[in-house]
Amino acid sequence: MNRESLEKILAEVHANQMSPEAALSKLENLPYEDLSFARIDHHRSLRGSLPEAIFCENKTPDQVLAIVNSIRQSGTTVLGTRLSEEVFTSIREKLPKEAKYDKVSRTLVLKENQEKDLVGNISILCAGTSDIPVAEEAAITAETFNNKVERIYDVGVAGIHRLFDQLEKIKESKVIIVIAGMDGALPSVVGGLVAQPVIAVPTSIGYGAALNGLAPLLTMLNSCAPGVAVVNIDNGFGAACMAHKINALSNA
Amino acid sequence: MNRESLEKILAEVHANQMSPEAALSKLENLPYEDLSFARIDHHRSLRGSLPEAIFCENKTPDQVLAIVNSIRQSGTTVLGTRLSEEVFTSIREKLPKEAKYDKVSRTLVLKENQEKDLVGNISILCAGTSDIPVAEEAAITAETFNNKVERIYDVGVAGIHRLFDQLEKIKESKVIIVIAGMDGALPSVVGGLVAQPVIAVPTSIGYGAALNGLAPLLTMLNSCAPGVAVVNIDNGFGAACMAHKINALSNA
Amino acid sequence: MNRESLEKILAEVHANQMSPEAALSKLENLPYEDLSFARIDHHRSLRGSLPEAIFCENKTPDQVLAIVNSIRQSGTTVLGTRLSEEVFTSIREKLPKEAKYDKVSRTLVLKENQEKDLVGNISILCAGTSDIPVAEEAAITAETFNNKVERIYDVGVAGIHRLFDQLEKIKESKVIIVIAGMDGALPSVVGGLVAQPVIAVPTSIGYGAALNGLAPLLTMLNSCAPGVAVVNIDNGFGAACMAHKINALSNA
Amino acid sequence: MNRESLEKILAEVHANQMSPEAALSKLENLPYEDLSFARIDHHRSLRGSLPEAIFCENKTPDQVLAIVNSIRQSGTTVLGTRLSEEVFTSIREKLPKEAKYDKVSRTLVLKENQEKDLVGNISILCAGTSDIPVAEEAAITAETFNNKVERIYDVGVAGIHRLFDQLEKIKESKVIIVIAGMDGALPSVVGGLVAQPVIAVPTSIGYGAALNGLAPLLTMLNSCAPGVAVVNIDNGFGAACMAHKINALSNA
Amino acid sequence: MNRESLEKILAEVHANQMSPEAALSKLENLPYEDLSFARIDHHRSLRGSLPEAIFCENKTPDQVLAIVNSIRQSGTTVLGTRLSEEVFTSIREKLPKEAKYDKVSRTLVLKENQEKDLVGNISILCAGTSDIPVAEEAAITAETFNNKVERIYDVGVAGIHRLFDQLEKIKESKVIIVIAGMDGALPSVVGGLVAQPVIAVPTSIGYGAALNGLAPLLTMLNSCAPGVAVVNIDNGFGAACMAHKINALSNA
Amino acid sequence: MNRESLEKILAEVHANQMSPEAALSKLENLPYEDLSFARIDHHRSLRGSLPEAIFCENKTPDQVLAIVNSIRQSGTTVLGTRLSEEVFTSIREKLPKEAKYDKVSRTLVLKENQEKDLVGNISILCAGTSDIPVAEEAAITAETFNNKVERIYDVGVAGIHRLFDQLEKIKESKVIIVIAGMDGALPSVVGGLVAQPVIAVPTSIGYGAALNGLAPLLTMLNSCAPGVAVVNIDNGFGAACMAHKINALSNA
Amino acid sequence: MNRESLEKILAEVHANQMSPEAALSKLENLPYEDLSFARIDHHRSLRGSLPEAIFCENKTPDQVLAIVNSIRQSGTTVLGTRLSEEVFTSIREKLPKEAKYDKVSRTLVLKENQEKDLVGNISILCAGTSDIPVAEEAAITAETFNNKVERIYDVGVAGIHRLFDQLEKIKESKVIIVIAGMDGALPSVVGGLVAQPVIAVPTSIGYGAALNGLAPLLTMLNSCAPGVAVVNIDNGFGAACMAHKINALSNA
Amino acid sequence: MNRESLEKILAEVHANQMSPEAALSKLENLPYEDLSFARIDHHRSLRGSLPEAIFCENKTPDQVLAIVNSIRQSGTTVLGTRLSEEVFTSIREKLPKEAKYDKVSRTLVLKENQEKDLVGNISILCAGTSDIPVAEEAAITAETFNNKVERIYDVGVAGIHRLFDQLEKIKESKVIIVIAGMDGALPSVVGGLVAQPVIAVPTSIGYGAALNGLAPLLTMLNSCAPGVAVVNIDNGFGAACMAHKINALSNA
Repeated sequence: MNRESLEKILAEVHANQMSPEAALSKLENLPYEDLSFARIDHHRSLRGSLPEAIFCENKTPDQVLAIVNSIRQSGTTVLGTRLSEEVFTSIREKLPKEAKYDKVSRTLVLKENQEKDLVGNISILCAGTSDIPVAEEAAITAETFNNKVERIYDVGVAGIHRLFDQLEKIKESKVIIVIAGMDGALPSVVGGLVAQPVIAVPTSIGYGAALNGLAPLLTMLNSCAPGVAVVNIDNGFGAACMAHKINALSNA
Repeated sequence: MNRESLEKILAEVHANQMSPEAALSKLENLPYEDLSFARIDHHRSLRGSLPEAIFCENKTPDQVLAIVNSIRQSGTTVLGTRLSEEVFTSIREKLPKEAKYDKVSRTLVLKENQEKDLVGNISILCAGTSDIPVAEEAAITAETFNNKVERIYDVGVAGIHRLFDQLEKIKESKVIIVIAGMDGALPSVVGGLVAQPVIAVPTSIGYGAALNGLAPLLTMLNSCAPGVAVVNIDNGFGAACMAHKINALSNA
Repeated sequence: MNRESLEKILAEVHANQMSPEAALSKLENLPYEDLSFARIDHHRSLRGSLPEAIFCENKTPDQVLAIVNSIRQSGTTVLGTRLSEEVFTSIREKLPKEAKYDKVSRTLVLKENQEKDLVGNISILCAGTSDIPVAEEAAITAETFNNKVERIYDVGVAGIHRLFDQLEKIKESKVIIVIAGMDGALPSVVGGLVAQPVIAVPTSIGYGAALNGLAPLLTMLNSCAPGVAVVNIDNGFGAACMAHKINALSNA
Repeated sequence: MNRESLEKILAEVHANQMSPEAALSKLENLPYEDLSFARIDHHRSLRGSLPEAIFCENKTPDQVLAIVNSIRQSGTTVLGTRLSEEVFTSIREKLPKEAKYDKVSRTLVLKENQEKDLVGNISILCAGTSDIPVAEEAAITAETFNNKVERIYDVGVAGIHRLFDQLEKIKESKVIIVIAGMDGALPSVVGGLVAQPVIAVPTSIGYGAALNGLAPLLTMLNSCAPGVAVVNIDNGFGAACMAHKINALSNA
Repeated sequence: MNRESLEKILAEVHANQMSPEAALSKLENLPYEDLSFARIDHHRSLRGSLPEAIFCENKTPDQVLAIVNSIRQSGTTVLGTRLSEEVFTSIREKLPKEAKYDKVSRTLVLKENQEKDLVGNISILCAGTSDIPVAEEAAITAETFNNKVERIYDVGVAGIHRLFDQLEKIKESKVIIVIAGMDGALPSVVGGLVAQPVIAVPTSIGYGAALNGLAPLLTMLNSCAPGVAVVNIDNGFGAACMAHKINALSNA
Repeated sequence: MNRESLEKILAEVHANQMSPEAALSKLENLPYEDLSFARIDHHRSLRGSLPEAIFCENKTPDQVLAIVNSIRQSGTTVLGTRLSEEVFTSIREKLPKEAKYDKVSRTLVLKENQEKDLVGNISILCAGTSDIPVAEEAAITAETFNNKVERIYDVGVAGIHRLFDQLEKIKESKVIIVIAGMDGALPSVVGGLVAQPVIAVPTSIGYGAALNGLAPLLTMLNSCAPGVAVVNIDNGFGAACMAHKINALSNA
Repeated sequence: MNRESLEKILAEVHANQMSPEAALSKLENLPYEDLSFARIDHHRSLRGSLPEAIFCENKTPDQVLAIVNSIRQSGTTVLGTRLSEEVFTSIREKLPKEAKYDKVSRTLVLKENQEKDLVGNISILCAGTSDIPVAEEAAITAETFNNKVERIYDVGVAGIHRLFDQLEKIKESKVIIVIAGMDGALPSVVGGLVAQPVIAVPTSIGYGAALNGLAPLLTMLNSCAPGVAVVNIDNGFGAACMAHKINALSNA
Repeated sequence: MNRESLEKILAEVHANQMSPEAALSKLENLPYEDLSFARIDHHRSLRGSLPEAIFCENKTPDQVLAIVNSIRQSGTTVLGTRLSEEVFTSIREKLPKEAKYDKVSRTLVLKENQEKDLVGNISILCAGTSDIPVAEEAAITAETFNNKVERIYDVGVAGIHRLFDQLEKIKESKVIIVIAGMDGALPSVVGGLVAQPVIAVPTSIGYGAALNGLAPLLTMLNSCAPGVAVVNIDNGFGAACMAHKINALSNA
């Protein structure tokens, strides 16, 4: 409830243009939709700068479908993440035709009709081939939110010349997402080479002492390079949201 | 070594304006200063957007002094963090007069002569009174880098109306730093209310299952609100660097 | 062995109404039933305020059946938790007809014949759709113990207006169960808004740094709001037992 | 902001008894006091059922004094926890004369003038002598909130007859707080013997594999006895708040 | 290589009854058999008091068969633990007919021909029905090593009268094995009631904060009752070995 | 409450030799002494085989003194562990003259008057010089309980010939305590060489990845040698209690 | 980019034998191949002493095939590790005929045509039969890099005479790899007996407190024997790389 | 006991040049010295390639002195590590005059009289100034064992040009020790650039999520660069031992 809307309602009540009961009800009916098992937050794109996305893991096919439809009807772009191929296949026919599913990143996208120009430039780096599913979740999320994305994959520090070769391209971005598993060393190296904010994403790639991604997570939190912030393990979506918010600022 | 300088050197060699030996030596003499125990990276403010800062913990008074002087002579602003009052007192007289030490945040600042206008607007929130030292490290770091800072302290979620009262002020910022110990719940709540990027800082405030800050760190990494990224426990400096880089983008 | 029964037995021995041998045997034959692999504690509903429930995970279908029948014969309500659909299906035909199985919460209920009025009011909140199975385990457990339950689902802090809309309804309860995974921030926010005792249940929903529920568990243990106590990860049953005991007190 | 007050304000605006500006300002001026480093939540005793308490660890003597005075002036009872003897001694003379400091539990209490009758009955058990400081923090907190407290100390499971001897007394309580370090087994045993809700408090007493209280914390979270909920390690204050809320319900 | 055999060899060399070369070769040929992938330690029953047992997890069916045969040929009892039903079925026909497989404990036993009297008395307690597989691994191991075993199952502390009823029987043992998952509180209670050494076995039964058995393991290591020692999670075999060694001592 | 005493009381009541009231009171007055902050368990040496020992850490000097005197008056041996030199010095003059304090192990012993013959033979091995304080706590505890002790120190596996040289002496014991920090490998090696039960004690000696004793604790729990059981980190007292109980069995 | 090549390029530019543009392009075109999802580092065998190996876990069959072919075409030896039998079977027919797959170690090898003499001597020890897959990964890796390997398996410390019997053979190696799960004690014992560098490899063999290999990892990091260094859990490949580098040095 | 000495003793017994008793006694008197609290392993320099070093932490000044003297008398070099300045000062006057103490690394060295030429070349890199104490422990240890050492400090990855500038010097070494705290990323970068074996040393430098060195330890264990092995946190001594053994091989 922001100041302006409150001020406006109060003024209308004062001017007898609105009854106290109507005001009360207005203040109470915040714009979300109750599906009984979920309360879709249609308000989010007004309140923040991001549409509601669907985290599909742990949801039944029916729940996914119902939420997709609810968002779809409000006219905004739909983004589903962590949608397994099995669940997608089971609901495929009930989805609108324009729905695009990507196997590698396990994302589902239904874009709004009117195309917008992609803006800014988000570089997405990953250290190894096995990190690509997380990188693609980030890339598709960012593109769905109308950001221009530069993919730069398999540039891990064990062969650091591969990174240096791409440095100029990287330096043209507004914000950089750096994804790595195992030793998670790439964000520290990148952070020391560039002026842009770096969003580090640890992945669960690795074995043994990688501890399902805790090792690169700790590495990144302890980065010696200033200007590096971290999101959850394998959270390509979260990194893209953060990058989108930063990119939006620099294009405002 | 960037493309332009390499191109220029090669051109000069080709034009016989520079000998191969001179070129070789030039390429090798990168701009840092070797103090034998430390290699001051004067190059950083060119390479990135941040001056070299001194992390004073674990350094002897003599090491701190030598690094301060080395940076000072290169003409840039000096920022020392985690400088204990004991060490500061022991080197106080050997420091330039304009050096300002702040007890609460344990920072030391020597600003460049020419004053620059503060730009942008970084809101710094903290959940409780005990989080203030970390908040002040962030605030002083950000101000030292010429950012305008809005301090909003003691607005933890257990009395959430204190936060809502400040919401409009918060929404005027370009980027928001949210600092909390114990349950670390504040960034999730703030992240759900604003459009700006949120940088979350867990603190070591708490006891028992707070595990010296691991509990709020995990909370923040798992934030349900998109657009939240996290730095190390008690790392007010790192949060300010990230915020500065984002603020710089939006003012570019 | 309580004071009264001891006193009575001793008096009867003294009055020669009972032989020492009979007394000894009486004191030894405490009321439980030995199924060789399990000792059913029929005494519990006398001793405490809760009937024996069956934790079905790790039990064979035969063991579940035998325990169900043993409890059933003692005439009390039967509650089985964590009963997988596979095991239920395999024993379905051997169960009494009135047995009700719920897929979502994986509970099995055989209520006593005489209906009792539901009393009190336990609000059960959960942060997201994926937390519903735990919430339903709590709800069905509480209802099986004759408590009136108010379900308020998908009101996580990332869209906090959804919570505020339900606040009045929540404030009418005697005790509140708050269930959340990922950042586990909801109990802190609720605990700061209400006068009732809050029982917090972390769930294993999340990934990466959620550490299978350890992250929200730690968050909840560190809650800044006083009057919040915590049960094990995904332990909807335990939360309902605690809530039932509190509700019973306030209705005594 | 509850429904009634909002309704009342809106009605007054409608009736021209209040200007929109006054209404707006009223809605914004929530009842807390801004000490710049802290926002005292005078509203809490209205909103919940507990007065604001001061967690003194990590606060400077001046901060403690200022908060004590702020609360004192609002006329309510003051409770400070984790106040070290050093800090207490340094502010002793500036405190009101009726302030009572208890060394063992490190609590500071300034009761309201009018004495209220103690109600209900909270049993506080601890397993060993070393757990007494936590038990006393719980006991003094509960008494400060006008609860009658029964102290039953040093009844750990390694000499279980000591517990059984006290069982009748324990069974007369409305709610039971059980405090234990090391193996943390006491709440499970008590929880299996009584009908009341049990609040378990792990302590940091122990060494080695006690992991500063993590071992008994885990024990208690895994309690086989239903109706046991847990608070943070050494959190006698939190347990007393929960017990007070439950006791208040049963006396309402 | 023990003193007597060395002494004897040296004496024979001195008396010219053995050549130095023969002595050297004798000292080198220690009694084990090299299967290339395993070195069967036939010497163990001489050296210690336990026959070689086969830990079958992670071994291929062929490896299990080869080791069983190698031990079998040396004439001693064969005990295989953690042998899955699948592997057993696949090698069933190639095993000697007298081989006995037990599904619950997943053990395989081939006893020596001559029957020995069972000696001593080892009580094996477990807290819940789900702990029985571990209890049976301990029981069958102990019986295979000729110990008399008393099984006392499902006597967890949440219904402590079930334990007290069995106390006399328990007190007749030489050594007691106590097995529990979840809160792992049973060994502390038993250890406080008896004079015998108690071997505690945590199990992986439980969920969430049970951390796959780490919680009861920590509980047991922190037992307040003196005279309790602990083995690895689910290690019924190891507990039985320890108990056998103690029982053997008391029967020596 | 054991069977015989219950039987006897019931018989006396039946024979009119005791009134029901007297019986009731007798059954309630179990033999412990209530010091208000501690309940001394004089019953333990009857119930189990060990006198009550005082764990002095976290106890005030006054508490230690009061408990020492309470045990002393019951005529049994007093053993205090983890008594810091500071506390000992502060109560020295109030202690009986025959009290012996040992700095290295931080133990206090007041033996009963009548000397008993030391029996059995407990070998106590430690891996390094730094483990001696724990070894001496074990040794003095065992001696106080009338066990003959063989000390074999600094025989860690990194110079394994030092161990082999002592092997015969070790093999003469009834039970072996093996103490080690850092890699904690010694119990596995000893357990593979001897027939006796081995009690393993991890110590907090080491640094970094020794994790304050967690590393050797884990090593010992995973020992490949059967017949090894483990006690808490630095718990020399607990190992001696277990060894004493085993030694007592073999001398019964 | 090493000094010589830079010097040479600069000299050619200076001598007008190369244009600045050509030089620039040369410096930029570092020798790796971009497969879009992977950047094959053909340069590694020049830069370091090891060919590029393929970590096949988490790679699709197509990705594995493409990388194998890319390396194959550059003429060097191909080593694939952690290649599951399923993936191998699915690409078998598209692989060159000389490709050798080993089930136990899950490695794929395509050796260069010209046979080189095996040099040096790397001993590979493992503690138990279940550690053999890791040992074989190490052995095949080392052999693929032309090292002579001595396999010494199943020599764990619980039957230490099996190790001593092999000691002479072990002492003939240049470097020793020691592999163990569970208690991980073997490297400490070996490290105390030999002069060679020891590379310790913890395995995930074990259960419960073995924590998937963390227990032996910690044991090895805390080894009391100097001259032991450790690689990741189950990392036979990494151990062999380190051993190869050391062996190469001693044969240089 | 090696083969040659055994063969020689047996031959002498056979030739009647030695009595069996003398042989037996010879075989038993292995060359170590029993100081009652420590068994000095004079044999180590024969058995392995390293003299006995003294880990002084947790040892009393008297113990340190006695061990120093015992080693000194055997004529070999003495190296004490982790000797605090306090302990050193307290024993200074009782030490031989040639003893050299280094404050930064806390090492004590007494070199053998005859100077040996330093051989090989061990590069020791550290990431930051705060890592120098660990680096110096490594450097002084290596020099004490007659290795030539190249110190290259403060070359962390956040300013990676500082590392590249030193690369040629680094590539001249036989073996490289790389020391880093915080993100621990340096060994991965170095390991990707050089052919030599890399020994990685994590340090406890850092805060919060550095977890006292666990974070860089995990990073290094997960290094993507092959040919990196790791020692314990802050274990400069251990890294130097490993490096010395490798260097010795390459100079053999």
